[in-house]
Amino acid sequence: MSRSAPEDLVALRRDLHRHPEPAWREFYTTARIVDELETRPVDELYVGREVLTDDRMAVPDETDLDAWFERAREAGAREDVLESLAGGYTGAVAVVRRGDGPTVGLRVDIDALPIAESDDGSHAPAAGGYRSETAGYMHACGHDAHATLGIGVIDAIAESDFEGTLKVFFQPSEEVVGGGGPMAESGHLDDVDYLLAVHVGLDHPTGEIVAGIDGFLAVHHFRAAFTGTPAHAGAKPEEGDNAVLAMATAVQNLHGISRHSDGATRVNAGLVGGGTATNIVPEEAFVEGEVRGETTELMEYMRERAVRVLRSAAEMHGCEVEITTEGRAPSARSDDTLVDLVADVGGETAGVESVIRRDSLGGSEDATYLMRRVQEAGGLAAYVNVGTDHPGGHHTGTFDVDEASIPIGVDVLAASIEAIAARRP
Amino acid sequence: MSRSAPEDLVALRRDLHRHPEPAWREFYTTARIVDELETRPVDELYVGREVLTDDRMAVPDETDLDAWFERAREAGAREDVLESLAGGYTGAVAVVRRGDGPTVGLRVDIDALPIAESDDGSHAPAAGGYRSETAGYMHACGHDAHATLGIGVIDAIAESDFEGTLKVFFQPSEEVVGGGGPMAESGHLDDVDYLLAVHVGLDHPTGEIVAGIDGFLAVHHFRAAFTGTPAHAGAKPEEGDNAVLAMATAVQNLHGISRHSDGATRVNAGLVGGGTATNIVPEEAFVEGEVRGETTELMEYMRERAVRVLRSAAEMHGCEVEITTEGRAPSARSDDTLVDLVADVGGETAGVESVIRRDSLGGSEDATYLMRRVQEAGGLAAYVNVGTDHPGGHHTGTFDVDEASIPIGVDVLAASIEAIAARRP
Amino acid sequence: MSRSAPEDLVALRRDLHRHPEPAWREFYTTARIVDELETRPVDELYVGREVLTDDRMAVPDETDLDAWFERAREAGAREDVLESLAGGYTGAVAVVRRGDGPTVGLRVDIDALPIAESDDGSHAPAAGGYRSETAGYMHACGHDAHATLGIGVIDAIAESDFEGTLKVFFQPSEEVVGGGGPMAESGHLDDVDYLLAVHVGLDHPTGEIVAGIDGFLAVHHFRAAFTGTPAHAGAKPEEGDNAVLAMATAVQNLHGISRHSDGATRVNAGLVGGGTATNIVPEEAFVEGEVRGETTELMEYMRERAVRVLRSAAEMHGCEVEITTEGRAPSARSDDTLVDLVADVGGETAGVESVIRRDSLGGSEDATYLMRRVQEAGGLAAYVNVGTDHPGGHHTGTFDVDEASIPIGVDVLAASIEAIAARRP
Amino acid sequence: MSRSAPEDLVALRRDLHRHPEPAWREFYTTARIVDELETRPVDELYVGREVLTDDRMAVPDETDLDAWFERAREAGAREDVLESLAGGYTGAVAVVRRGDGPTVGLRVDIDALPIAESDDGSHAPAAGGYRSETAGYMHACGHDAHATLGIGVIDAIAESDFEGTLKVFFQPSEEVVGGGGPMAESGHLDDVDYLLAVHVGLDHPTGEIVAGIDGFLAVHHFRAAFTGTPAHAGAKPEEGDNAVLAMATAVQNLHGISRHSDGATRVNAGLVGGGTATNIVPEEAFVEGEVRGETTELMEYMRERAVRVLRSAAEMHGCEVEITTEGRAPSARSDDTLVDLVADVGGETAGVESVIRRDSLGGSEDATYLMRRVQEAGGLAAYVNVGTDHPGGHHTGTFDVDEASIPIGVDVLAASIEAIAARRP
Repeated sequence: MSRSAPEDLVALRRDLHRHPEPAWREFYTTARIVDELETRPVDELYVGREVLTDDRMAVPDETDLDAWFERAREAGAREDVLESLAGGYTGAVAVVRRGDGPTVGLRVDIDALPIAESDDGSHAPAAGGYRSETAGYMHACGHDAHATLGIGVIDAIAESDFEGTLKVFFQPSEEVVGGGGPMAESGHLDDVDYLLAVHVGLDHPTGEIVAGIDGFLAVHHFRAAFTGTPAHAGAKPEEGDNAVLAMATAVQNLHGISRHSDGATRVNAGLVGGGTATNIVPEEAFVEGEVRGETTELMEYMRERAVRVLRSAAEMHGCEVEITTEGRAPSARSDDTLVDLVADVGGETAGVESVIRRDSLGGSEDATYLMRRVQEAGGLAAYVNVGTDHPGGHHTGTFDVDEASIPIGVDVLAASIEAIAARRP
Repeated sequence: MSRSAPEDLVALRRDLHRHPEPAWREFYTTARIVDELETRPVDELYVGREVLTDDRMAVPDETDLDAWFERAREAGAREDVLESLAGGYTGAVAVVRRGDGPTVGLRVDIDALPIAESDDGSHAPAAGGYRSETAGYMHACGHDAHATLGIGVIDAIAESDFEGTLKVFFQPSEEVVGGGGPMAESGHLDDVDYLLAVHVGLDHPTGEIVAGIDGFLAVHHFRAAFTGTPAHAGAKPEEGDNAVLAMATAVQNLHGISRHSDGATRVNAGLVGGGTATNIVPEEAFVEGEVRGETTELMEYMRERAVRVLRSAAEMHGCEVEITTEGRAPSARSDDTLVDLVADVGGETAGVESVIRRDSLGGSEDATYLMRRVQEAGGLAAYVNVGTDHPGGHHTGTFDVDEASIPIGVDVLAASIEAIAARRP
Repeated sequence: MSRSAPEDLVALRRDLHRHPEPAWREFYTTARIVDELETRPVDELYVGREVLTDDRMAVPDETDLDAWFERAREAGAREDVLESLAGGYTGAVAVVRRGDGPTVGLRVDIDALPIAESDDGSHAPAAGGYRSETAGYMHACGHDAHATLGIGVIDAIAESDFEGTLKVFFQPSEEVVGGGGPMAESGHLDDVDYLLAVHVGLDHPTGEIVAGIDGFLAVHHFRAAFTGTPAHAGAKPEEGDNAVLAMATAVQNLHGISRHSDGATRVNAGLVGGGTATNIVPEEAFVEGEVRGETTELMEYMRERAVRVLRSAAEMHGCEVEITTEGRAPSARSDDTLVDLVADVGGETAGVESVIRRDSLGGSEDATYLMRRVQEAGGLAAYVNVGTDHPGGHHTGTFDVDEASIPIGVDVLAASIEAIAARRP
Repeated sequence: MSRSAPEDLVALRRDLHRHPEPAWREFYTTARIVDELETRPVDELYVGREVLTDDRMAVPDETDLDAWFERAREAGAREDVLESLAGGYTGAVAVVRRGDGPTVGLRVDIDALPIAESDDGSHAPAAGGYRSETAGYMHACGHDAHATLGIGVIDAIAESDFEGTLKVFFQPSEEVVGGGGPMAESGHLDDVDYLLAVHVGLDHPTGEIVAGIDGFLAVHHFRAAFTGTPAHAGAKPEEGDNAVLAMATAVQNLHGISRHSDGATRVNAGLVGGGTATNIVPEEAFVEGEVRGETTELMEYMRERAVRVLRSAAEMHGCEVEITTEGRAPSARSDDTLVDLVADVGGETAGVESVIRRDSLGGSEDATYLMRRVQEAGGLAAYVNVGTDHPGGHHTGTFDVDEASIPIGVDVLAASIEAIAARRP
């Protein structure tokens, strides 16, 4: 077995790009990854229910899962792997044991987005024939490249002098901040001494490496479903308990939660709806929203006030409200020791033209669950960015990665992992 | 003792007009009425605490009461009467017993308003030298004339063939709908078989009588006091529980209480306030408001929803709220039998040029408490309007009554009372 | 040609019941009515664009229209009629000329509702095999019976002594109050001297006739579409112009429009939505709502304030708003002369056991457009109710009409029309 | 003339403490400062209108000004100085010219707060007989000490080797962020090369110096006065344009202005009111509030959105709104060069036990206007804190300064000013 040829990695990335799958529905993706792993010197391979606890969030309903499951089967996913993913337990963990040394983890995420991909001739996947084959869905944040980096690093480590254990976490459902928590609690992180998480792009060009990303906002996604009493709006308006009015009151007051002097907070009622007809006092309404905070404590401050607003708004209008958690991620910080190490390695890696020590994300990420799990057990973690030219912005229909950045990323990550293992205090 | 001379009634009315006193502070007014009653053949006279239960609403604080008490003393109110009014127990009931017959009640109200009286030369009280002597207060709704009608009717009945018992209720605190309830429950209504309540003006000219006023909206006045937690708005905004925000949320949602298909409703947040300084998260805020309904049930529907809104708004913003009742009156209807009788009498009274059988008020009045008390015990009640030319509208600084309407009112009321007593089934 | 046999009318009603079509999509229905009319002594027949002006409201989009058009074709609707209905111009007007006399109109509506019909064995159409054949749609308000009454009356008039002109208006799109306006303005009403509109049921049993329905609330349906600016809710919230926040502010303040002392008003934000994802500041949001008033003036008062609220809420949050009218109907009153006449005729009609002179609807109806059109030109109009036992309420999945009420309705309406024509002052 | 004796400074501070005067009413205070200055080697002295532009903010009405003016006269303020302060033009600037060198400014503020001073025996001013003589007002933020420091520094510089020009700015109205702007624009800053502003306390003990305070939030105080149309809430609610409803809508939406990713923002509706009576649709309402930002740009973002909210809320409810600026201050940053210099000097000053280089305020201050004025012209500025033990917190009734900190402050400031002048590049 030799280090993977760049063209193999590109082929893998393009296949994944053609089959984008959203959160908890990465059936084809996981099966394809398992296919790759089985041809490599992987000592242990865990799939589906083996890599997740049961408290997953934002899991779609059965009909939705079934449709994607069937689509994966039709696209050629292996039946035996699919079976282990039933119910939307997607993702995998690969373990490579190479002698007596620390356990180093690498986390890559694998899910796609509900965004329609551009079919413009200037969009490389469209011109090159590997555009998304599923209308309305797309790898618009580079997770196809992330999965590919995970495979590439296994190959690179296989032929390196690495001594220790490498675990690669192919995590599902990052886009809904739903997969990080269940994977962090699965037990596979318990013996990890060092963890690197990786992302491509983020406005950094090919050849640039950011050794430590910070500024993750802790985030909490919720859904509040209001139930009132319908009534004829002309004949008997007083018999209604107006769920839309409860929702509107909640939305206004969610946005009015007080700012906090300890740091940045956010709130958004991102998706709302309610009612059935112009002349019916609405019986049902909902808000799907999020709160964030510069720290987990700040996010919790927002969450507690949000819950109070939602409950009181329901009560005010004689409605019931059911509030569910749809996703969640804490804040986290990249450890200086690892950041320094990755920065040093990056500076010596061919193809790297610029190394930035630290940068701030400004958004949220559930890799933080895995980072915190390692850090709380006394280990170290860092979130590394591999620059890649991307013509369209993240989460737009023209997003694309520069495939030349993939081998650079593999080299930096593998060399960093080797250096980490060699570090021993 | 003979029927009161019109000039005496005018003198009385002008004296009362010069000494306007608002709700629960009718100290001079009550004392002056007692003075008049003591020169007349009144068999029983009840004053202050004797004519009210203890559950008065909207009673001002002691400092306020004391200031008006002192002002009444300085204006020459009798010390012995004042003593019986201590604590703001104002008003009186006069009883005239004239043989074996039914008990007929007449209700007149006596309080003034916090409105500044015009000093324009075209305003008769200003030109005539009997303008309000208390800045900012005024008899702007004719209750000075009402009290005078009460005295005039006692004189007229005294020399009539009336057989039965006449009770005249000089009721305080109508303008805050605060006095009707405590007087209705005082026991003095318990043996009343027939009740007439009277009002002057209401856009009807001198010489016009309305035999039965209806369309009283049941009303409920409340005060909601919100208490939160103050905080420095720049340094520690998150430590505040914002009472002004709770109040604003309540105001918005009070106005959004659903309309009712059974009839008219109203809601108003008439007086609000809160906070202390631009840079402090407000600890306190309040709303003084009212709800109304075409029926008492509709008013209660509004009141219950209003309480729910106020409580939930407080809870939403981490505040406490204390809700107190500040005034209240039910709806009521004038009985046909009495309306017909007054209409007939009116048609035969000198000075009456026009009789309207029924008209609608569109506002609220706590005479309804007394009317309902009588009606619930099997008696009959009607609310009679005595037309009077009034150049300015009710509750404006140029309101005035045409004093020529006072003897007409006395005649219609006294003749009606005599006819009612003679009615006997 | 003889008076239609009851069994023919029942067969027609059941065929229409099996093919329910919602507003502006009554393709099969209109074609079926035309089929019936062409076998009868109808002098003139106008269809589709001939009976409507262009300013229709709440017209669905082309895709939707096409699907129903195709469904009607597959159900056997005549191609030539379908062509004249292209673009959703549905409905028909039939004219029967019978000598020198006044023109009497009869208005029946023909559209169905987006309600799923019960398949319970106790539901007669389910048991009898004529349940809706289109899932999710149903004649749940008896318009199938209304259309049938229109046909039956033409037969009855044909063999009566009627002298004058009869016009039967088969009006589309009543349920969205969308068809009345365009038909009223089509010109076909211009020479109508007397108009009867008819409804079945409304909680009146078979054998009962209400000679004049009143209490129509004038109604206005609107859609407000807010457009703001999207932004990442975590990374750049300040760049967003939040359409959901504009919508929520509008909903709260729509419900807070002040009550009116002239009579009943209503407001409802019946259907709302907005946003795309939890972490995006929402770019778009909408409200579909309605305002109503006891009179057209009161409805206009509500509409004007609603527009002000919608526009200001958009402006407040930096959004654009487009407000469109989706339906509309004025209030109207049944004329005493016609009500008396129908009541008299009803009292003498076989099968009629009870005649109520007047009743109140409490909802809205766009027959009022046609009634007002006639009344404004000096004619008379009345809205007549033909009682029918209906086990389920209107607008529920178990609604059904008692077919025995159909011939009773035909008799009362035909006899009334004959009497009206004979009336001549 | 020799350096002022500590006991003289204490006597001055106590006299000012006994005569606290709020913003724009520092009549006695300014007169007392002028008295002191006239006994010292001050070369130029500017007072009142000479030290302020006309665009003052938050100036009280004439009645209020007159009352304080009169109180100052009665307390013994000099008539000639008072005259130059007429209309509330308070404050002074003293200039000491000492040869050829740079111009160094020192800014001290002089106003007091509407806070009642503790009369507890444990409160030193109460025990020592120099408690506030004006009920409800108090030097609760140490500006009495600030003014005293200004005088003390003039004495110290007088006997030092200082070469250059010293300007001491006795600024009025800091507590309402109203005086900084007009003084900054007065022209007296135009030739200032270096500026120190000073504050005592801020939770730093006697003997501690903070060389550079930062973290000033830019702030903008506004008052929005809504005017609608009154109406009787029972009889004619529809005729009202509800100013309280406009205000409540504004308050809710002010608090809902989106957070900004560039840094901290604040908003507070600190003082609100409206309406006159329970049964009147409110004609008037107001909000006094503030917005803040970590930078002036962020404050401006908040201000622009706030204005949009206020205007749209008025429009939504048919009201007018007048928005006035009541106070304002930008953010500012202490220059490193001065901070280093003050830190060095502090470390060598007797009585100083601890020097902190930088600390963050977290609130607002209009010294920033003067600092920016100097910085924009190419000069340097720093905000220095002189620690003082204070038993009660700032802005509480038990606040007090440790008078032992005054000579320490004088020494650090005078030595810093001397060192700055000696610096010459």
